[in-house]
Amino acid sequence: MQRVGVARSTLYQQVASELRRAIYSGELRPGDPLPTEADLMRKSNVSRNTVRLALGELVNEGLISRTPRRGSVVRERRPLLLYPQKELEPQPEGGRQEAFARAVAEVGRKPSQDIEVAIVEPPEDIATRLALPDGELAVVRRRLRYVDDQPFNTNDSYFPLSLVQNSEIARPADITRGANRVLEELGHPQVRMVDDISARMPTSEEVSRLKLEPGTPVVVHVRVGYDPEDMPVRVAVSVLPADKHLIRYELERH
Amino acid sequence: MQRVGVARSTLYQQVASELRRAIYSGELRPGDPLPTEADLMRKSNVSRNTVRLALGELVNEGLISRTPRRGSVVRERRPLLLYPQKELEPQPEGGRQEAFARAVAEVGRKPSQDIEVAIVEPPEDIATRLALPDGELAVVRRRLRYVDDQPFNTNDSYFPLSLVQNSEIARPADITRGANRVLEELGHPQVRMVDDISARMPTSEEVSRLKLEPGTPVVVHVRVGYDPEDMPVRVAVSVLPADKHLIRYELERH
Repeated sequence: MQRVGVARSTLYQQVASELRRAIYSGELRPGDPLPTEADLMRKSNVSRNTVRLALGELVNEGLISRTPRRGSVVRERRPLLLYPQKELEPQPEGGRQEAFARAVAEVGRKPSQDIEVAIVEPPEDIATRLALPDGELAVVRRRLRYVDDQPFNTNDSYFPLSLVQNSEIARPADITRGANRVLEELGHPQVRMVDDISARMPTSEEVSRLKLEPGTPVVVHVRVGYDPEDMPVRVAVSVLPADKHLIRYELERH
Repeated sequence: MQRVGVARSTLYQQVASELRRAIYSGELRPGDPLPTEADLMRKSNVSRNTVRLALGELVNEGLISRTPRRGSVVRERRPLLLYPQKELEPQPEGGRQEAFARAVAEVGRKPSQDIEVAIVEPPEDIATRLALPDGELAVVRRRLRYVDDQPFNTNDSYFPLSLVQNSEIARPADITRGANRVLEELGHPQVRMVDDISARMPTSEEVSRLKLEPGTPVVVHVRVGYDPEDMPVRVAVSVLPADKHLIRYELERH
Protein backbone atom coordinates (compact mmCIF):
# COMPACT_ATOMS: atom_id res chain seq x y z
CA MET A 1 0.00 0.00 0.00
CA GLN A 2 1.11 3.52 -0.63
CA ARG A 3 0.04 6.81 0.69
CA VAL A 4 0.25 10.19 -0.90
CA GLY A 5 2.86 12.22 0.91
CA VAL A 6 2.03 15.49 2.52
CA ALA A 7 5.19 17.52 2.06
CA ARG A 8 7.25 17.51 5.24
CA SER A 9 8.63 20.90 6.08
CA THR A 10 12.23 19.86 6.58
CA LEU A 11 15.11 22.23 7.11
CA TYR A 12 15.99 22.49 3.44
CA GLN A 13 12.38 23.24 2.59
CA GLN A 14 12.43 26.15 5.02
CA VAL A 15 15.55 27.52 3.35
CA ALA A 16 13.93 27.03 -0.08
CA SER A 17 10.82 28.77 1.13
CA GLU A 18 12.73 31.88 2.24
CA LEU A 19 14.45 32.14 -1.14
CA ARG A 20 11.17 31.55 -2.97
CA ARG A 21 9.57 34.42 -1.09
CA ALA A 22 12.53 36.68 -1.93
CA ILE A 23 12.09 35.83 -5.62
CA TYR A 24 8.35 36.23 -5.76
CA SER A 25 8.38 39.43 -3.73
CA GLY A 26 10.76 40.95 -6.28
CA GLU A 27 13.54 41.33 -3.70
CA LEU A 28 15.47 39.05 -6.07
CA ARG A 29 14.69 39.82 -9.73
CA PRO A 30 15.12 37.82 -12.96
CA GLY A 31 18.82 37.70 -13.78
CA ASP A 32 19.92 38.48 -10.21
CA PRO A 33 22.50 36.17 -8.67
CA LEU A 34 21.48 34.29 -5.55
CA PRO A 35 23.60 34.49 -2.40
CA THR A 36 26.50 32.02 -2.54
CA GLU A 37 26.27 28.65 -0.84
CA ALA A 38 28.66 29.88 1.84
CA ASP A 39 26.47 32.95 2.48
CA LEU A 40 23.35 30.83 2.71
CA MET A 41 25.06 28.36 5.10
CA ARG A 42 26.03 31.22 7.41
CA LYS A 43 22.75 33.12 7.17
CA SER A 44 20.51 30.11 7.84
CA ASN A 45 23.02 28.24 9.98
CA VAL A 46 22.70 25.05 7.95
CA SER A 47 25.02 22.59 6.22
CA ARG A 48 26.17 22.80 2.62
CA ASN A 49 24.07 19.76 1.81
CA THR A 50 20.94 21.46 3.15
CA VAL A 51 21.68 24.54 1.03
CA ARG A 52 22.12 22.32 -2.04
CA LEU A 53 18.85 20.51 -1.44
CA ALA A 54 17.10 23.89 -1.05
CA LEU A 55 18.59 25.22 -4.30
CA GLY A 56 17.61 21.92 -5.92
CA GLU A 57 13.99 22.60 -5.04
CA LEU A 58 14.12 25.98 -6.76
CA VAL A 59 15.80 24.54 -9.85
CA ASN A 60 13.13 21.87 -10.01
CA GLU A 61 10.46 24.54 -9.84
CA GLY A 62 12.08 26.44 -12.71
CA LEU A 63 12.77 29.47 -10.53
CA ILE A 64 16.56 29.54 -10.71
CA SER A 65 19.31 28.04 -12.81
CA ARG A 66 22.60 26.83 -11.43
CA THR A 67 25.97 26.70 -13.09
CA PRO A 68 28.71 24.66 -11.45
CA ARG A 69 31.36 26.98 -9.97
CA ARG A 70 29.40 30.08 -11.01
CA GLY A 71 26.46 30.06 -8.63
CA SER A 72 22.74 30.47 -9.18
CA VAL A 73 20.64 33.14 -10.88
CA VAL A 74 16.92 33.87 -10.92
CA ARG A 75 15.37 32.73 -14.18
CA GLU A 76 13.24 34.85 -16.49
CA ARG A 77 10.48 32.35 -16.97
CA ARG A 78 8.66 31.07 -13.92
CA PRO A 79 6.27 28.21 -14.50
CA LEU A 80 3.48 27.83 -12.01
CA LEU A 81 3.86 24.68 -9.97
CA LEU A 82 0.59 22.75 -9.65
CA TYR A 83 -0.02 20.06 -7.03
CA PRO A 84 -3.13 18.21 -8.22
CA GLN A 85 -3.22 16.14 -5.04
CA LYS A 86 -4.02 19.18 -2.90
CA GLU A 87 -7.62 19.18 -4.07
CA LEU A 88 -8.16 15.97 -2.08
CA GLU A 89 -6.77 17.38 1.15
CA PRO A 90 -9.18 18.56 3.82
CA GLN A 91 -9.65 22.30 3.47
CA PRO A 92 -9.59 24.69 6.42
CA GLU A 93 -13.14 25.90 7.18
CA GLY A 94 -13.64 29.50 6.17
CA GLY A 95 -10.19 29.74 4.61
CA ARG A 96 -11.39 27.73 1.67
CA GLN A 97 -10.32 29.01 -1.69
CA GLU A 98 -10.31 27.43 -5.09
CA ALA A 99 -7.07 25.42 -5.58
CA PHE A 100 -5.71 27.38 -8.54
CA ALA A 101 -6.34 30.76 -6.91
CA ARG A 102 -4.63 29.54 -3.76
CA ALA A 103 -1.57 28.26 -5.66
CA VAL A 104 -1.23 31.59 -7.44
CA ALA A 105 -1.80 33.72 -4.36
CA GLU A 106 0.71 31.67 -2.37
CA VAL A 107 3.52 32.75 -4.67
CA GLY A 108 2.55 36.41 -4.43
CA ARG A 109 0.86 36.67 -7.82
CA LYS A 110 -2.65 37.85 -8.55
CA PRO A 111 -5.26 35.28 -9.65
CA SER A 112 -8.49 36.17 -11.41
CA GLN A 113 -10.93 34.46 -13.73
CA ASP A 114 -13.78 34.80 -16.18
CA ILE A 115 -16.52 32.30 -15.60
CA GLU A 116 -19.34 31.20 -17.86
CA VAL A 117 -21.95 28.65 -16.91
CA ALA A 118 -24.00 26.73 -19.47
CA ILE A 119 -26.31 23.75 -19.73
CA VAL A 120 -25.11 21.61 -22.62
CA GLU A 121 -25.24 18.24 -24.29
CA PRO A 122 -21.61 17.47 -23.45
CA PRO A 123 -19.01 16.23 -25.95
CA GLU A 124 -18.96 12.48 -26.35
CA ASP A 125 -15.85 11.82 -24.28
CA ILE A 126 -17.20 13.90 -21.40
CA ALA A 127 -20.61 12.18 -21.54
CA THR A 128 -18.83 8.85 -21.44
CA ARG A 129 -16.63 9.79 -18.51
CA LEU A 130 -19.73 10.98 -16.63
CA ALA A 131 -21.57 7.77 -17.64
CA LEU A 132 -24.44 9.99 -18.89
CA PRO A 133 -27.23 8.25 -20.79
CA ASP A 134 -27.72 9.48 -24.39
CA GLY A 135 -29.19 12.95 -24.58
CA GLU A 136 -28.74 13.72 -20.87
CA LEU A 137 -27.51 17.19 -20.15
CA ALA A 138 -24.64 18.52 -18.11
CA VAL A 139 -23.81 21.80 -16.46
CA VAL A 140 -20.46 23.14 -17.54
CA ARG A 141 -18.58 25.84 -15.69
CA ARG A 142 -15.99 27.24 -18.12
CA ARG A 143 -13.23 29.29 -16.68
CA LEU A 144 -10.50 31.33 -18.29
CA ARG A 145 -7.93 31.99 -15.60
CA TYR A 146 -5.52 34.87 -15.37
CA VAL A 147 -2.30 35.40 -13.45
CA ASP A 148 -1.29 39.02 -13.01
CA ASP A 149 -4.02 39.84 -15.58
CA GLN A 150 -2.45 37.63 -18.28
CA PRO A 151 -4.52 34.70 -19.67
CA PHE A 152 -2.95 31.60 -18.16
CA ASN A 153 -5.06 28.48 -18.60
CA THR A 154 -8.60 27.20 -18.96
CA ASN A 155 -10.61 24.84 -16.79
CA ASP A 156 -13.98 23.42 -17.85
CA SER A 157 -15.82 21.45 -15.17
CA TYR A 158 -18.81 19.30 -16.14
CA PHE A 159 -21.47 18.02 -13.73
CA PRO A 160 -24.55 15.87 -14.45
CA LEU A 161 -27.48 18.31 -14.69
CA SER A 162 -29.77 15.93 -12.79
CA LEU A 163 -27.41 16.13 -9.82
CA VAL A 164 -26.73 19.86 -9.62
CA GLN A 165 -29.72 21.60 -11.23
CA ASN A 166 -31.04 23.09 -7.99
CA SER A 167 -27.65 24.12 -6.64
CA GLU A 168 -25.27 27.05 -7.01
CA ILE A 169 -23.28 24.97 -9.49
CA ALA A 170 -25.96 25.63 -12.13
CA ARG A 171 -25.90 29.40 -11.50
CA PRO A 172 -23.56 31.72 -13.39
CA ALA A 173 -21.61 33.11 -10.47
CA ASP A 174 -18.44 32.41 -8.59
CA ILE A 175 -18.73 29.87 -5.75
CA THR A 176 -16.39 31.14 -3.09
CA ARG A 177 -16.29 27.89 -1.13
CA GLY A 178 -15.78 25.91 -4.34
CA ALA A 179 -17.98 23.62 -6.41
CA ASN A 180 -16.46 20.61 -4.65
CA ARG A 181 -17.94 21.75 -1.35
CA VAL A 182 -21.33 22.16 -3.01
CA LEU A 183 -21.09 18.57 -4.29
CA GLU A 184 -20.37 17.47 -0.72
CA GLU A 185 -23.42 19.34 0.54
CA LEU A 186 -25.49 17.58 -2.15
CA GLY A 187 -24.36 14.24 -0.68
CA HIS A 188 -21.76 13.48 -3.37
CA PRO A 189 -18.31 14.16 -1.95
CA GLN A 190 -15.51 13.18 -4.31
CA VAL A 191 -13.54 10.47 -2.54
CA ARG A 192 -11.62 9.15 -5.53
CA MET A 193 -10.12 11.00 -8.45
CA VAL A 194 -8.55 9.72 -11.63
CA ASP A 195 -6.22 12.09 -13.48
CA ASP A 196 -5.32 11.58 -17.14
CA ILE A 197 -2.44 13.67 -18.43
CA SER A 198 -1.50 14.13 -22.05
CA ALA A 199 -0.17 16.85 -24.32
CA ARG A 200 -0.96 18.12 -27.80
CA MET A 201 -0.60 21.19 -29.98
CA PRO A 202 -3.24 23.83 -29.20
CA THR A 203 -6.25 24.52 -31.37
CA SER A 204 -6.29 27.92 -33.09
CA GLU A 205 -9.01 29.00 -30.69
CA GLU A 206 -6.75 28.13 -27.75
CA VAL A 207 -3.84 30.02 -29.34
CA SER A 208 -5.86 33.22 -29.44
CA ARG A 209 -7.72 32.74 -26.17
CA LEU A 210 -4.58 31.91 -24.20
CA LYS A 211 -2.28 34.23 -26.20
CA LEU A 212 0.14 31.37 -26.90
CA GLU A 213 3.56 31.80 -28.46
CA PRO A 214 4.02 29.80 -31.70
CA GLY A 215 5.19 26.24 -31.06
CA THR A 216 3.87 26.06 -27.52
CA PRO A 217 2.12 22.76 -26.76
CA VAL A 218 -0.57 22.42 -24.13
CA VAL A 219 -0.81 19.85 -21.37
CA VAL A 220 -4.32 18.49 -21.00
CA HIS A 221 -5.22 17.41 -17.48
CA VAL A 222 -8.53 15.57 -17.17
CA ARG A 223 -9.78 14.77 -13.69
CA VAL A 224 -12.79 12.58 -13.01
CA GLY A 225 -14.15 12.75 -9.47
CA TYR A 226 -16.12 9.80 -8.03
CA ASP A 227 -18.45 9.79 -5.05
CA PRO A 228 -18.49 7.00 -2.40
CA GLU A 229 -20.84 4.93 -4.64
CA ASP A 230 -18.17 5.18 -7.38
CA MET A 231 -20.46 7.37 -9.47
CA PRO A 232 -18.63 9.98 -11.57
CA VAL A 233 -19.91 13.38 -10.41
CA ARG A 234 -17.48 15.80 -12.03
CA VAL A 235 -15.13 15.92 -15.01
CA ALA A 236 -12.65 18.80 -15.01
CA VAL A 237 -10.62 19.47 -18.15
CA SER A 238 -7.69 21.85 -17.73
CA VAL A 239 -5.73 23.13 -20.71
CA LEU A 240 -2.33 24.23 -19.47
CA PRO A 241 0.16 26.01 -21.77
CA ALA A 242 3.31 23.93 -21.42
CA ASP A 243 5.67 26.88 -21.05
CA LYS A 244 3.86 28.14 -17.97
CA HIS A 245 3.03 25.05 -15.94
CA LEU A 246 4.73 22.24 -14.11
CA ILE A 247 2.64 19.48 -12.56
CA ARG A 248 3.94 17.69 -9.48
CA TYR A 249 2.80 14.52 -7.77
CA GLU A 250 4.34 13.35 -4.50
CA LEU A 251 4.12 9.67 -3.67
CA GLU A 252 5.15 7.79 -0.57
CA ARG A 253 5.44 4.15 0.27
CA HIS A 254 4.23 3.26 3.78
CA MET B 1 -4.90 12.15 4.50
CA GLN B 2 -5.05 10.44 1.19
CA ARG B 3 -3.97 7.13 -0.04
CA VAL B 4 -3.05 6.07 -3.50
CA GLY B 5 -5.79 3.83 -4.79
CA VAL B 6 -5.05 0.35 -5.96
CA ALA B 7 -7.57 -0.11 -8.75
CA ARG B 8 -10.54 -2.09 -7.50
CA SER B 9 -11.59 -4.72 -9.93
CA THR B 10 -15.25 -3.87 -10.01
CA LEU B 11 -17.75 -5.40 -12.38
CA TYR B 12 -17.39 -2.71 -15.03
CA GLN B 13 -13.62 -3.08 -14.94
CA GLN B 14 -13.99 -6.78 -15.68
CA VAL B 15 -16.17 -6.00 -18.69
CA ALA B 16 -13.65 -3.35 -19.81
CA SER B 17 -10.85 -5.83 -19.38
CA GLU B 18 -12.51 -8.41 -21.68
CA LEU B 19 -13.02 -5.82 -24.38
CA ARG B 20 -9.46 -4.55 -23.99
CA ARG B 21 -8.12 -8.04 -24.50
CA ALA B 22 -10.25 -8.47 -27.62
CA ILE B 23 -8.82 -5.23 -29.01
CA TYR B 24 -5.21 -5.91 -28.19
CA SER B 25 -5.37 -9.51 -29.39
CA GLY B 26 -6.58 -8.27 -32.78
CA GLU B 27 -9.94 -10.04 -32.45
CA LEU B 28 -11.34 -6.51 -32.76
CA ARG B 29 -9.35 -4.40 -35.23
CA PRO B 30 -9.05 -0.64 -35.77
CA GLY B 31 -12.29 0.60 -37.37
CA ASP B 32 -14.31 -2.42 -36.19
CA PRO B 33 -17.58 -1.69 -34.39
CA LEU B 34 -17.88 -2.94 -30.84
CA PRO B 35 -20.82 -5.11 -29.80
CA THR B 36 -23.88 -2.97 -28.99
CA GLU B 37 -24.72 -2.07 -25.41
CA ALA B 38 -27.61 -4.53 -25.50
CA ASP B 39 -25.30 -7.32 -26.70
CA LEU B 40 -22.77 -6.57 -23.99
CA MET B 41 -25.50 -6.49 -21.31
CA ARG B 42 -26.68 -9.94 -22.37
CA LYS B 43 -23.25 -11.44 -22.87
CA SER B 44 -21.81 -10.31 -19.53
CA ASN B 45 -25.12 -10.33 -17.68
CA VAL B 46 -24.70 -6.79 -16.41
CA SER B 47 -26.71 -3.58 -16.35
CA ARG B 48 -26.62 -0.86 -19.00
CA ASN B 49 -24.88 1.42 -16.54
CA THR B 50 -22.09 -1.12 -16.02
CA VAL B 51 -21.65 -1.45 -19.79
CA ARG B 52 -21.44 2.34 -20.08
CA LEU B 53 -18.85 2.61 -17.35
CA ALA B 54 -16.81 -0.13 -19.08
CA LEU B 55 -16.98 1.64 -22.44
CA GLY B 56 -16.06 4.85 -20.64
CA GLU B 57 -12.84 3.23 -19.47
CA LEU B 58 -11.90 2.33 -23.03
CA VAL B 59 -12.73 5.81 -24.31
CA ASN B 60 -10.58 7.30 -21.58
CA GLU B 61 -7.73 5.02 -22.61
CA GLY B 62 -8.05 6.18 -26.22
CA LEU B 63 -8.92 2.67 -27.42
CA ILE B 64 -12.40 3.30 -28.78
CA SER B 65 -14.53 6.24 -29.80
CA ARG B 66 -18.24 6.46 -29.13
CA THR B 67 -20.90 8.27 -31.08
CA PRO B 68 -24.32 8.77 -29.50
CA ARG B 69 -26.90 6.52 -31.18
CA ARG B 70 -24.24 5.02 -33.47
CA GLY B 71 -22.24 2.84 -31.11
CA SER B 72 -18.52 2.42 -30.57
CA VAL B 73 -15.60 1.65 -32.86
CA VAL B 74 -12.00 0.67 -32.23
CA ARG B 75 -9.69 3.62 -32.80
CA GLU B 76 -6.68 3.63 -35.08
CA ARG B 77 -4.31 5.21 -32.61
CA ARG B 78 -3.78 3.49 -29.32
CA PRO B 79 -1.79 5.43 -26.74
CA LEU B 80 -0.03 3.40 -24.10
CA LEU B 81 -1.50 4.01 -20.68
CA LEU B 82 1.17 4.54 -18.03
CA TYR B 83 0.52 4.25 -14.29
CA PRO B 84 3.54 5.90 -12.64
CA GLN B 85 2.31 4.88 -9.19
CA LYS B 86 2.84 1.20 -9.92
CA GLU B 87 6.58 1.53 -9.47
CA LEU B 88 5.99 2.07 -5.74
CA GLU B 89 3.87 -1.04 -5.31
CA PRO B 90 5.46 -4.13 -3.82
CA GLN B 91 6.59 -6.39 -6.66
CA PRO B 92 6.00 -10.12 -6.71
CA GLU B 93 9.26 -11.99 -6.02
CA GLY B 94 10.59 -13.65 -9.14
CA GLY B 95 7.87 -12.15 -11.29
CA ARG B 96 9.59 -8.83 -11.19
CA GLN B 97 9.82 -7.04 -14.49
CA GLU B 98 10.65 -3.47 -15.32
CA ALA B 99 7.45 -1.34 -15.16
CA PHE B 100 7.40 -0.23 -18.80
CA ALA B 101 7.98 -3.75 -20.14
CA ARG B 102 5.20 -5.03 -17.91
CA ALA B 103 2.74 -2.34 -19.06
CA VAL B 104 3.48 -3.14 -22.70
CA ALA B 105 3.36 -6.92 -22.27
CA GLU B 106 0.06 -6.66 -20.37
CA VAL B 107 -1.66 -5.25 -23.43
CA GLY B 108 -0.30 -7.97 -25.68
CA ARG B 109 2.39 -5.89 -27.34
CA LYS B 110 6.10 -6.63 -27.53
CA PRO B 111 8.49 -4.52 -25.44
CA SER B 112 12.21 -4.28 -26.14
CA GLN B 113 14.98 -1.79 -25.47
CA ASP B 114 18.47 -0.63 -26.28
CA ILE B 115 20.50 0.19 -23.22
CA GLU B 116 23.67 2.18 -22.85
CA VAL B 117 25.46 2.76 -19.57
CA ALA B 118 27.90 5.60 -19.01
CA ILE B 119 29.69 7.41 -16.23
CA VAL B 120 29.19 11.13 -16.72
CA GLU B 121 29.32 14.55 -15.18
CA PRO B 122 25.55 14.96 -15.25
CA PRO B 123 23.72 18.02 -16.61
CA GLU B 124 23.26 20.77 -14.08
CA ASP B 125 19.58 20.12 -13.36
CA ILE B 126 20.25 16.42 -12.77
CA ALA B 127 23.23 17.14 -10.51
CA THR B 128 21.05 19.50 -8.53
CA ARG B 129 18.19 17.04 -8.20
CA LEU B 130 20.69 14.41 -6.99
CA ALA B 131 22.26 16.99 -4.62
CA LEU B 132 25.67 16.03 -6.09
CA PRO B 133 28.63 18.15 -5.04
CA ASP B 134 30.40 19.97 -7.92
CA GLY B 135 32.34 17.63 -10.15
CA GLU B 136 30.87 14.43 -8.67
CA LEU B 137 29.99 11.82 -11.22
CA ALA B 138 26.85 9.88 -11.92
CA VAL B 139 26.05 6.62 -13.64
CA VAL B 140 23.44 7.05 -16.33
CA ARG B 141 21.49 4.17 -17.82
CA ARG B 142 20.04 5.45 -21.10
CA ARG B 143 17.31 3.44 -22.66
CA LEU B 144 15.55 3.70 -25.98
CA ARG B 145 12.39 1.64 -25.69
CA TYR B 146 10.49 -0.05 -28.47
CA VAL B 147 6.95 -1.34 -28.74
CA ASP B 148 6.40 -3.90 -31.48
CA ASP B 149 9.88 -2.94 -32.75
CA GLN B 150 8.95 0.75 -33.20
CA PRO B 151 10.87 3.40 -31.21
CA PHE B 152 8.49 4.55 -28.52
CA ASN B 153 10.14 6.59 -25.78
CA THR B 154 13.38 7.18 -23.93
CA ASN B 155 14.23 6.81 -20.26
CA ASP B 156 17.50 8.03 -18.77
CA SER B 157 18.10 7.07 -15.14
CA TYR B 158 20.88 8.75 -13.18
CA PHE B 159 22.43 7.42 -9.96
CA PRO B 160 25.22 8.91 -7.81
CA LEU B 161 28.41 7.05 -8.84
CA SER B 162 29.60 6.86 -5.23
CA LEU B 163 26.47 4.88 -4.38
CA VAL B 164 26.34 2.39 -7.23
CA GLN B 165 29.89 2.00 -8.53
CA ASN B 166 30.32 -1.56 -7.31
CA SER B 167 26.86 -2.75 -8.33
CA GLU B 168 25.19 -4.03 -11.48
CA ILE B 169 23.80 -0.54 -12.04
CA ALA B 170 27.24 0.59 -13.23
CA ARG B 171 27.55 -2.33 -15.67
CA PRO B 172 26.30 -2.11 -19.26
CA ALA B 173 23.75 -4.89 -19.16
CA ASP B 174 20.09 -5.37 -18.54
CA ILE B 175 19.09 -5.83 -14.89
CA THR B 176 16.23 -8.30 -14.98
CA ARG B 177 15.06 -7.61 -11.46
CA GLY B 178 15.29 -3.87 -12.05
CA ALA B 179 17.67 -1.16 -10.88
CA ASN B 180 15.26 -0.26 -8.09
CA ARG B 181 15.76 -3.67 -6.50
CA VAL B 182 19.52 -3.22 -6.72
CA LEU B 183 19.19 0.12 -4.89
CA GLU B 184 17.21 -1.71 -2.20
CA GLU B 185 19.95 -4.31 -1.87
CA LEU B 186 22.48 -1.48 -1.50
CA GLY B 187 20.46 -0.20 1.48
CA HIS B 188 18.76 2.65 -0.38
CA PRO B 189 15.18 1.66 -1.12
CA GLN B 190 13.16 4.47 -2.67
CA VAL B 191 10.34 5.22 -0.23
CA ARG B 192 9.30 8.58 -1.63
CA MET B 193 9.09 9.75 -5.21
CA VAL B 194 8.43 13.19 -6.62
CA ASP B 195 7.19 13.35 -10.22
CA ASP B 196 7.43 16.52 -12.30
CA ILE B 197 5.45 16.54 -15.51
CA SER B 198 5.78 19.06 -18.30
CA ALA B 199 5.65 19.16 -22.09
CA ARG B 200 7.66 20.79 -24.83
CA MET B 201 8.48 20.44 -28.51
CA PRO B 202 11.09 17.75 -29.17
CA THR B 203 14.71 18.46 -30.01
CA SER B 204 15.78 17.52 -33.54
CA GLU B 205 17.74 14.62 -32.05
CA GLU B 206 14.55 13.35 -30.40
CA VAL B 207 12.62 13.73 -33.65
CA SER B 208 15.01 11.41 -35.46
CA ARG B 209 15.65 9.02 -32.57
CA LEU B 210 11.95 8.56 -31.79
CA LYS B 211 10.78 8.88 -35.41
CA LEU B 212 8.32 11.63 -34.47
CA GLU B 213 5.68 13.01 -36.81
CA PRO B 214 5.97 16.78 -37.38
CA GLY B 215 4.15 18.80 -34.74
CA THR B 216 4.24 16.10 -32.08
CA PRO B 217 5.14 17.44 -28.65
CA VAL B 218 6.77 15.31 -25.97
CA VAL B 219 5.74 14.91 -22.37
CA VAL B 220 8.72 15.00 -20.02
CA HIS B 221 8.29 12.98 -16.85
CA VAL B 222 11.03 13.47 -14.27
CA ARG B 223 10.98 11.22 -11.22
CA VAL B 224 13.27 11.72 -8.23
CA GLY B 225 13.44 8.77 -5.83
CA TYR B 226 14.40 9.35 -2.18
CA ASP B 227 15.66 6.80 0.34
CA PRO B 228 14.44 6.65 3.99
CA GLU B 229 17.05 9.31 4.95
CA ASP B 230 15.46 11.58 2.30
CA MET B 231 18.57 11.36 0.16
CA PRO B 232 17.90 11.48 -3.60
CA VAL B 233 19.24 8.22 -5.04
CA ARG B 234 17.84 8.19 -8.56
CA VAL B 235 16.59 10.67 -11.15
CA ALA B 236 14.69 9.15 -14.07
CA VAL B 237 13.88 11.33 -17.07
CA SER B 238 11.35 9.89 -19.51
CA VAL B 239 10.65 11.56 -22.84
CA LEU B 240 7.22 10.42 -24.01
CA PRO B 241 5.89 11.33 -27.47
CA ALA B 242 2.51 12.90 -26.72
CA ASP B 243 0.62 11.03 -29.44
CA LYS B 244 1.54 7.65 -27.97
CA HIS B 245 1.22 8.05 -24.21
CA LEU B 246 -1.37 8.80 -21.60
CA ILE B 247 -0.30 9.13 -17.97
CA ARG B 248 -2.76 8.22 -15.25
CA TYR B 249 -2.71 8.86 -11.50
CA GLU B 250 -5.35 7.44 -9.18
CA LEU B 251 -5.95 9.20 -5.89
CA GLU B 252 -8.18 8.28 -2.99
CA ARG B 253 -9.28 10.08 0.11
CA HIS B 254 -9.44 7.90 3.22
